[in-house]
Amino acid sequence: MTAATALSPTLQLACDLIRRPSVTPVDADCQALLMRRLGAAGFRLEPMRIGEVDNFWATHGEGGGPVLCFAGHTDVVPTGPVQAWQHEPFAAQIDENGMLCGRGAADMKGSLAAMVVATERFVREYPRHKGTLAYLITSDEEGPAQHGTKAVVEVLRARGERLDWCIVGEPSSTALVGDVVKNGRRGSLGATLTVNGMQGHVAYPHLARNPIHLAAPALAELAAQHWDDGNAFFPPTSFQVSNLNAGTGATNVIPGTLTAQFNFRFSTESTVQNLQQRVATILDKHGLDWHIEWSLSGLPFVTEPGELLDAVAASIKAVTGRDTQPSTSGGTSDGRFIATLGTQVVELGPVNATIHQINERVLASDLEQLAEIYYHTLVRLLA
Amino acid sequence: MTAATALSPTLQLACDLIRRPSVTPVDADCQALLMRRLGAAGFRLEPMRIGEVDNFWATHGEGGGPVLCFAGHTDVVPTGPVQAWQHEPFAAQIDENGMLCGRGAADMKGSLAAMVVATERFVREYPRHKGTLAYLITSDEEGPAQHGTKAVVEVLRARGERLDWCIVGEPSSTALVGDVVKNGRRGSLGATLTVNGMQGHVAYPHLARNPIHLAAPALAELAAQHWDDGNAFFPPTSFQVSNLNAGTGATNVIPGTLTAQFNFRFSTESTVQNLQQRVATILDKHGLDWHIEWSLSGLPFVTEPGELLDAVAASIKAVTGRDTQPSTSGGTSDGRFIATLGTQVVELGPVNATIHQINERVLASDLEQLAEIYYHTLVRLLA
Repeated sequence: MTAATALSPTLQLACDLIRRPSVTPVDADCQALLMRRLGAAGFRLEPMRIGEVDNFWATHGEGGGPVLCFAGHTDVVPTGPVQAWQHEPFAAQIDENGMLCGRGAADMKGSLAAMVVATERFVREYPRHKGTLAYLITSDEEGPAQHGTKAVVEVLRARGERLDWCIVGEPSSTALVGDVVKNGRRGSLGATLTVNGMQGHVAYPHLARNPIHLAAPALAELAAQHWDDGNAFFPPTSFQVSNLNAGTGATNVIPGTLTAQFNFRFSTESTVQNLQQRVATILDKHGLDWHIEWSLSGLPFVTEPGELLDAVAASIKAVTGRDTQPSTSGGTSDGRFIATLGTQVVELGPVNATIHQINERVLASDLEQLAEIYYHTLVRLLA
Repeated sequence: MTAATALSPTLQLACDLIRRPSVTPVDADCQALLMRRLGAAGFRLEPMRIGEVDNFWATHGEGGGPVLCFAGHTDVVPTGPVQAWQHEPFAAQIDENGMLCGRGAADMKGSLAAMVVATERFVREYPRHKGTLAYLITSDEEGPAQHGTKAVVEVLRARGERLDWCIVGEPSSTALVGDVVKNGRRGSLGATLTVNGMQGHVAYPHLARNPIHLAAPALAELAAQHWDDGNAFFPPTSFQVSNLNAGTGATNVIPGTLTAQFNFRFSTESTVQNLQQRVATILDKHGLDWHIEWSLSGLPFVTEPGELLDAVAASIKAVTGRDTQPSTSGGTSDGRFIATLGTQVVELGPVNATIHQINERVLASDLEQLAEIYYHTLVRLLA
């Protein structure tokens, strides 16, 4: 166990944040702490409580040049059974392997601490930097995400704010810090499909229409479908059925309906309308009596190689010696909302191996490297 | 409302049975009543309580000739909500349309009453009839059916009893009494299929194996399969999936397993082994990791045209003027157990339109006709 007095500024701030049990959408004063630090560094602070959610927007600089924004969230997912944790989830202990342990260590209080420490150093060394350095922080990323980044972005859009570049502190790395950055995300389109048949007795199938039998060939065709080839930035669009249910429980009854929930993770080579049309065509081709409720979670976005991605890659190389790998794989993040402002968005954070799990943890020294990478990126873009 | 004093012997006995609320497997002294009547008619009585179930076996005649057995059950299915009934379900009232109303009126206390009254007349008129007239009565046909007819048949088999012909009183008629007799039943083979995949996140399908996607083409092929053509006595074998379930409930998780319950109603053109082998071949062809628990409810049996079917058809024609239609359709019955003794089995009873329903009822005059048909059959076979 490392004594508290020996902690670096980044680690100390990460611990202070983890010790505030901000289970989504509760903020537990994490944002007050961040605003105190940023205010002391000369930031203009704008708390934005929307609905029941705490958010804030903060800016530093004279304006007139490019705007670079750090974005992130102070909320964390629930701990699960506390007794299953090796170290108490909100104690923020550093174990014998040098891992900072606790809920939010990787997702994403470590990143927030690294951002703030890098920012403090940068504005101290470059008090008259060009453009604007901003923060967009929410406490509703792990929850419904309706009154968080999405709502703040609408405020910014309404008043005509421009964001050129955004670095989201989501844990993008897979094995070593900086090995992967996310330069976009696939779209996510969900659906609940109902196929209607006619209920009856298994002994009298001619008096019934079995929706399982009717739907099976259509599901097989949907599962076998090649939706697109992807492109330089995206893997091919994928289709997955997550839930499939039909039946009354009785073994002698032909059910009246079948329900399937499925999800597209889609590249910029497909559109929502196109995917919906192709599904409808397949269902109609099989003569089904069907109904779908669609649910669009996010459109795909991509940040093509350019100033932001170059600066991030060069900083990772300078600090770690690594060539980073841009990727659009994985789940959604708040980056999808910010990208709608025309912003180049990159996600860069620590190793994501333990996020949302029991015993979430991150190598303490990775957070020091992350603060260095953020600092170098600030220098390259705003110095 | 007909006054109780005006009831025929058949109707009176039917009412007496219905008023004994023998919800499966309870007998409520129905069998004691039947045995009293048969004992008075000269039958040798053999109560067979097996497990918690009342059954009896009774015989009349000197032996040495053919054995004809009446078979049936005194138990009834539950009433469902009593307040939904037009007439109290155990009151045995005759309504303004001449319908005897009550639980068991059609299935099958009306048949039992008709059998006993026909039997009393027959042994009175033909006290020295040839062969043996027997009764096999259980109180566990509507329930698990393990300690009922099936168990009695094992006792009879163990002591080498021969049953040439059996008339089961199940309600075989569809619109008019005697319009249909059942001369066999399809087999029923159930199965619970588990298809194993590998659970994962919908955003990372390459790290998972979706059992829904894997199973869909196999289910489609099973549903489209032509199992056999049936034959002169049976419709083609049919396959129906009754329950299909996969999924964790979450929309972003690829499930680890899929479960399907299905059922074959099969003709004598297919065997259990053959059906199991064909299913296995299809599942293997699709490369599935699968497991099946099979459950055989009954083998198919058929009574081909011969003495019993001829006697029954001629009696129906004589009493009603109708040409009966032999059929093997519909669900299973205790006839499947009796048929394993090599017995010709026919099911003949009243109209089945309301069985197991609220307001179960049967035309009172149909029971009179049924008693006449049973009597004529006895005369043709044993006089």
